[in-house]
Amino acid sequence: MFYFDKRLQYPVKVDSPDPIYARMLQQAIGGIEGEIRVCMQYFFQGWGARGPTTKYRDMLLHTATEEMGHVEMLATAVALNLETAPTKVQEAGATDKIVGAVMGGENPRHMVEGMLHRHLLSTGMAAFPANCEGVPFDMSHIYASGNLAADMYCNVAAESTGRVLAVRLYNATNDAGMRDMLSFMIARDTMHQQQWLAVIEEMGGHAGTLPIPNSFPQSEENQKFNYNFFSSSADGSPPPEGRWTQGPSLDGKGEYSIVQNQPMGQEPVLGPARPDSGAQSEQIG
Amino acid sequence: MFYFDKRLQYPVKVDSPDPIYARMLQQAIGGIEGEIRVCMQYFFQGWGARGPTTKYRDMLLHTATEEMGHVEMLATAVALNLETAPTKVQEAGATDKIVGAVMGGENPRHMVEGMLHRHLLSTGMAAFPANCEGVPFDMSHIYASGNLAADMYCNVAAESTGRVLAVRLYNATNDAGMRDMLSFMIARDTMHQQQWLAVIEEMGGHAGTLPIPNSFPQSEENQKFNYNFFSSSADGSPPPEGRWTQGPSLDGKGEYSIVQNQPMGQEPVLGPARPDSGAQSEQIG
Amino acid sequence: MFYFDKRLQYPVKVDSPDPIYARMLQQAIGGIEGEIRVCMQYFFQGWGARGPTTKYRDMLLHTATEEMGHVEMLATAVALNLETAPTKVQEAGATDKIVGAVMGGENPRHMVEGMLHRHLLSTGMAAFPANCEGVPFDMSHIYASGNLAADMYCNVAAESTGRVLAVRLYNATNDAGMRDMLSFMIARDTMHQQQWLAVIEEMGGHAGTLPIPNSFPQSEENQKFNYNFFSSSADGSPPPEGRWTQGPSLDGKGEYSIVQNQPMGQEPVLGPARPDSGAQSEQIG
Amino acid sequence: MFYFDKRLQYPVKVDSPDPIYARMLQQAIGGIEGEIRVCMQYFFQGWGARGPTTKYRDMLLHTATEEMGHVEMLATAVALNLETAPTKVQEAGATDKIVGAVMGGENPRHMVEGMLHRHLLSTGMAAFPANCEGVPFDMSHIYASGNLAADMYCNVAAESTGRVLAVRLYNATNDAGMRDMLSFMIARDTMHQQQWLAVIEEMGGHAGTLPIPNSFPQSEENQKFNYNFFSSSADGSPPPEGRWTQGPSLDGKGEYSIVQNQPMGQEPVLGPARPDSGAQSEQIG
Amino acid sequence: MFYFDKRLQYPVKVDSPDPIYARMLQQAIGGIEGEIRVCMQYFFQGWGARGPTTKYRDMLLHTATEEMGHVEMLATAVALNLETAPTKVQEAGATDKIVGAVMGGENPRHMVEGMLHRHLLSTGMAAFPANCEGVPFDMSHIYASGNLAADMYCNVAAESTGRVLAVRLYNATNDAGMRDMLSFMIARDTMHQQQWLAVIEEMGGHAGTLPIPNSFPQSEENQKFNYNFFSSSADGSPPPEGRWTQGPSLDGKGEYSIVQNQPMGQEPVLGPARPDSGAQSEQIG
Amino acid sequence: MFYFDKRLQYPVKVDSPDPIYARMLQQAIGGIEGEIRVCMQYFFQGWGARGPTTKYRDMLLHTATEEMGHVEMLATAVALNLETAPTKVQEAGATDKIVGAVMGGENPRHMVEGMLHRHLLSTGMAAFPANCEGVPFDMSHIYASGNLAADMYCNVAAESTGRVLAVRLYNATNDAGMRDMLSFMIARDTMHQQQWLAVIEEMGGHAGTLPIPNSFPQSEENQKFNYNFFSSSADGSPPPEGRWTQGPSLDGKGEYSIVQNQPMGQEPVLGPARPDSGAQSEQIG
Repeated sequence: MFYFDKRLQYPVKVDSPDPIYARMLQQAIGGIEGEIRVCMQYFFQGWGARGPTTKYRDMLLHTATEEMGHVEMLATAVALNLETAPTKVQEAGATDKIVGAVMGGENPRHMVEGMLHRHLLSTGMAAFPANCEGVPFDMSHIYASGNLAADMYCNVAAESTGRVLAVRLYNATNDAGMRDMLSFMIARDTMHQQQWLAVIEEMGGHAGTLPIPNSFPQSEENQKFNYNFFSSSADGSPPPEGRWTQGPSLDGKGEYSIVQNQPMGQEPVLGPARPDSGAQSEQIG
Repeated sequence: MFYFDKRLQYPVKVDSPDPIYARMLQQAIGGIEGEIRVCMQYFFQGWGARGPTTKYRDMLLHTATEEMGHVEMLATAVALNLETAPTKVQEAGATDKIVGAVMGGENPRHMVEGMLHRHLLSTGMAAFPANCEGVPFDMSHIYASGNLAADMYCNVAAESTGRVLAVRLYNATNDAGMRDMLSFMIARDTMHQQQWLAVIEEMGGHAGTLPIPNSFPQSEENQKFNYNFFSSSADGSPPPEGRWTQGPSLDGKGEYSIVQNQPMGQEPVLGPARPDSGAQSEQIG
Repeated sequence: MFYFDKRLQYPVKVDSPDPIYARMLQQAIGGIEGEIRVCMQYFFQGWGARGPTTKYRDMLLHTATEEMGHVEMLATAVALNLETAPTKVQEAGATDKIVGAVMGGENPRHMVEGMLHRHLLSTGMAAFPANCEGVPFDMSHIYASGNLAADMYCNVAAESTGRVLAVRLYNATNDAGMRDMLSFMIARDTMHQQQWLAVIEEMGGHAGTLPIPNSFPQSEENQKFNYNFFSSSADGSPPPEGRWTQGPSLDGKGEYSIVQNQPMGQEPVLGPARPDSGAQSEQIG
Repeated sequence: MFYFDKRLQYPVKVDSPDPIYARMLQQAIGGIEGEIRVCMQYFFQGWGARGPTTKYRDMLLHTATEEMGHVEMLATAVALNLETAPTKVQEAGATDKIVGAVMGGENPRHMVEGMLHRHLLSTGMAAFPANCEGVPFDMSHIYASGNLAADMYCNVAAESTGRVLAVRLYNATNDAGMRDMLSFMIARDTMHQQQWLAVIEEMGGHAGTLPIPNSFPQSEENQKFNYNFFSSSADGSPPPEGRWTQGPSLDGKGEYSIVQNQPMGQEPVLGPARPDSGAQSEQIG
Repeated sequence: MFYFDKRLQYPVKVDSPDPIYARMLQQAIGGIEGEIRVCMQYFFQGWGARGPTTKYRDMLLHTATEEMGHVEMLATAVALNLETAPTKVQEAGATDKIVGAVMGGENPRHMVEGMLHRHLLSTGMAAFPANCEGVPFDMSHIYASGNLAADMYCNVAAESTGRVLAVRLYNATNDAGMRDMLSFMIARDTMHQQQWLAVIEEMGGHAGTLPIPNSFPQSEENQKFNYNFFSSSADGSPPPEGRWTQGPSLDGKGEYSIVQNQPMGQEPVLGPARPDSGAQSEQIG
Repeated sequence: MFYFDKRLQYPVKVDSPDPIYARMLQQAIGGIEGEIRVCMQYFFQGWGARGPTTKYRDMLLHTATEEMGHVEMLATAVALNLETAPTKVQEAGATDKIVGAVMGGENPRHMVEGMLHRHLLSTGMAAFPANCEGVPFDMSHIYASGNLAADMYCNVAAESTGRVLAVRLYNATNDAGMRDMLSFMIARDTMHQQQWLAVIEEMGGHAGTLPIPNSFPQSEENQKFNYNFFSSSADGSPPPEGRWTQGPSLDGKGEYSIVQNQPMGQEPVLGPARPDSGAQSEQIG
């Protein structure tokens, strides 16, 4: 169960409120690279963790709980960036006339309004759990497979795209307060990348964990095709060489090679449609 | 651009058609762990790949093209498993009476019909791009971040959950044809896990790629908090120890430690609501 | 604006309530082939219709209004089919013991409960605007393009898949009341297929309406490639012949032919990633 | 920011694991009446609360934090109910033969497998953030309007449908452990209904809060039509009488009456389509 | 069943067409606070209403039918606001050069085009059933629980957020025609808030309806925890006092109090993973 | 199975990169009128095609394979249009000051950034499978009914709305490279409209294919109501005349007529709520 402290994990200050930047920050709240996603992903992985100890469950809950605080920080940052956003045409004031003249009738504040519509129309100038384009976060992005190693790679993926996003947000602003907040979040993403990869390491690294799931006997997979790069070029020209086209595989259990992709199977022929299946008469055998 | 061969990449045979298994296979078509996802993910990563060479673009397109053939194999497998599914109450035949008596009126074929509804009602006994519960595949699951290393981890995640799913499908059937098809797909997932991790290896492994993105100067992240595990237990009890709580970090650029999470920030105070923002009067300053 | 009569457009009777059939009927309410879709599609096409007269707007509103009555009929049919569904384990009664014995512990009513969950848990035994698998109807399926001919074909598509669904539902039941209701709905779908195709006919048929939109001068499309079937077979083997591979085109403005698909374009080379775009260092030029 | 205790808020015990019941419980996790919804709704309302004090913000965070613990309890209950679910055909054992004979070939365990597919295929027998039909929770259901009174009614709605759901779940099981857990959750829903309505009371009840938002001068709404029930019956027959058709309005600011709905507006005539807007030629003026 | 009159319920006039405002109005059509939602919600509640009389069913259908006319009015308003929107770069005309110079190359009309994309590209300048950001309306927002009192609170919530939205739209425009239309809609929302609350009143108010559902015996809920505010502050500091922390509860059946939240449950321990469940070997007991 | 050539089907050149136009092009990638949709629709129709020959299956796969190449072209076009988009505030440069003065503080580049957010924040300046407003493509738009004629009309609908979109995109740009690419795509849409209609023609045209499905005996539909236009006007005023209100039906099997819509059914009366169904006490019989 959970407790809260009404103070934030790290200071959130906005020197110059910027409603467009508020929109951008939404991506870090409700985007697939955002904080709701990692928070919920770690919770569901933890709550469903099966295994000899509760060690990984506990670790996941520690970090999930921290991430909830990150959602809170970002929601606060959005609200602070919206403090001065316009709600009324009249606020635009006198300069509008000049701009209107230059722009042939269009009112640039109007454009801003349009771009802010959801914050203006639906939230009363607050954050909401959607991405920067207003697409609501959809919980199908909570990856929790029941396989610990698979889940760790899902987490590395989430923290990698998450840090990429945070860096882009950092680069997109000059606001000192926002940059300070983001420098903290970027640092936490660094650690979390390290953390999930360290679990892989602890579980045996490439040799110990691969192929995932390692509980399935490799003798039952088709061993003719488990370490070959399939080339699918139409003219048979070879694919580019890389670490993955020759030499020992990373798990030490195979040897990479290149194979030209070609049909081993048949042309599929399905049975005719049933008389009562709503097909056209011509489809019925 | 693309070409096709009307034959399948690998043989697809169904010895005993099983409509329930058809439902299960849908997860490998339109589930988030499925083949449409990896196919489209590799395509979009490839089409958007930026960098000094087209090497990674090419590799991604080779594998994406292969995956399209896997979607085709699975769609064929679903159609073949549905060949004998019932479309009409009358097909249930004479045994119904006995069963009906035993079951107090319920008709078990009816139950099956209900569970097959979408295949029965919407597709005429064919595959469709949704998961095993009929939730349509949603393209927000195509992860393509513009960062090559982040994308590789997204791909490892996809192939790890994908192989876990394929193994579960393998375990859930005794059909020799289906097991043969899946033993091929499981093998390809093995290779694809190897392949994306090999790109990471080629790009420098942990030391060379982390933290992702490695183009952001670590001097700008908050270096006090980038290699610490934050403990969020309410009573301050320590988190479980692991590779991630002490010793050098995987990238060799830091030292793991444990820090008790506690508020460094303020209690947030937002400005009052604007008079014209549709708030209650009491909220307006 | 709108009015209602509390009576239904056509009688809805259920002779033997069947909760599984209630599930199936949901597809005709909230499935993409269902009645909410055509109702809303015709409304939005009508409300947005632009042109010299209001004739098509009016016609669309007549039929949209009729379709709302079909949603009502189906919602009633679902509720009536659910009248006797179980809500409690205890209702299952004495026969359970026998069945339980036969089935090794599983309770088949339990299965039914599971399959009915949403009707049981969320609606109190009533219809809801989702398909037979509980996927909520999503209004992106309202096709209204602003081009009258395109919209008519969208409507033919909707009424064709709609009648296919209604036929499948008819075939799936022996209930006389349900069959009577569906024989009416199937008849209306017949008319609506006729109706939208008659608009095409009135607008000039193939010669007058194609290609859609006919307001775009064909001189501006690439006239080398506007009546050719592109063959994409990898080995260059010819595609099957048909009405579409030779002879005059349906609009009388071209001649069908077959062309082997092959690259006319370049290998795309994108610029390197920007230094501040969150890419890996290796991607930055 | 947040902390956790690894113990649950209230005991979760499952006496007889029941995989079908696990499915049902999912509705209380990821259904729109479920606990993720209230948890996130209260958080976002709290984080965006504007007004003279932080009182309501604080209250919302207390309860949101409690709700997170309810999600945890339910996720645990799902996992415990799945402990004995089958993953393999072979587990079904000897009784299958008899059942198969009775049922004409269908294997009832197979049916169960089908109904459990997502838990079997995607989660490794754990909860996931979707409803009982596998529809992922979608964050557009987080209602947080920026108007405190509107938000309170959204919360009463959530807790009312939530308690209805919990009662249905209670009635659907005989498991003593599950009933004990639900009797606690039902009690908390009782309090939460009381709590949000008490805020309305504190803010002045009907007279003080209505119409919402009370900051908009009623002189600017059309005062001819703000307390009348519009009858939309086609034949002009009167609607049923009720508290809302005569007597003083609840806010004391008007008098209820009945008005027959009829057109006050025009037949809309839109301009012709633009020449370059992709319409058919016939639509262009 | 239903009828229509081709005239609108209330006049819709647009004095100065404004494409940005058209976007904003979309929120009132296809947003979760919008008119499609209330229309469909009341229909489905009405069609599924069970009880001794058809009184509430009738009332719901009257108002649902009225709401359909509101969708029509708003769709008309959107189309009229789009009458003069640009479809071609060339229309922008001579002033562009100046603006272009000022803006360093960007063309502000281009921006507008971008913001209007869907109206321009998909609808031919007409309304569509999505919110102001183009997110399609999703029918999971139709709340109809089968419990009359719960449904009434869902309706109050819908009309409260709906009136808040309408007020914000009113404040965001100076167009006399639009303000007149909205002053009518705001008035109707006033009545509808009154209407649904009056049903609650008629059913016995707080004492008679609470807790919802009132058909569940309170003796079966955990009576130790049904009228207490749980404080979840980490340091045990007390929550803010309010009507909900002491004194008699609104339903007169309990007494409010404050309780410090703390674990009554156990640390959950799940069983190990099954050998064939696709887990890592380490997770298998 | 599939092969690729790294060259594009047709040249893609962008003379003046335009990030706003990149956004617009997204509609042709991930919009419902776009290329992912037709590609996947033809694949799933082909993979599930049942009937006496594999002719239609083959034809569908040829065209589906071509369409995959169109997605590739458009993804390339998006990436090329984004080559010069700003990622940093600082790039805006000196002209900002003037513009800022004119605009009263708003920075128009900032607006552009806001409008580009997803390309900036999520993709590193590349295409993604969503529409021009960032709504991810949802595979429920893959129409494949199992009825060949119904599917052909779904395809005509897709290619009609697709060509309308392509024409609008053509009209929205002056870029010679983009216009050349689109003139090719518009031409292909012309052919594809012809192609699917030619299948209908080959299958017997209106007389042979209608009503769809033609395998259902018309004697079982209600023949009193299968060729009548139902008028739903409240005052009984007649609907507009058209090809569909009199004369022989298009399939030659009926005669069009007009019928005034009126209730043939009853007022529905549902049973009372069950005692244990979570309704209010008043609803329980």
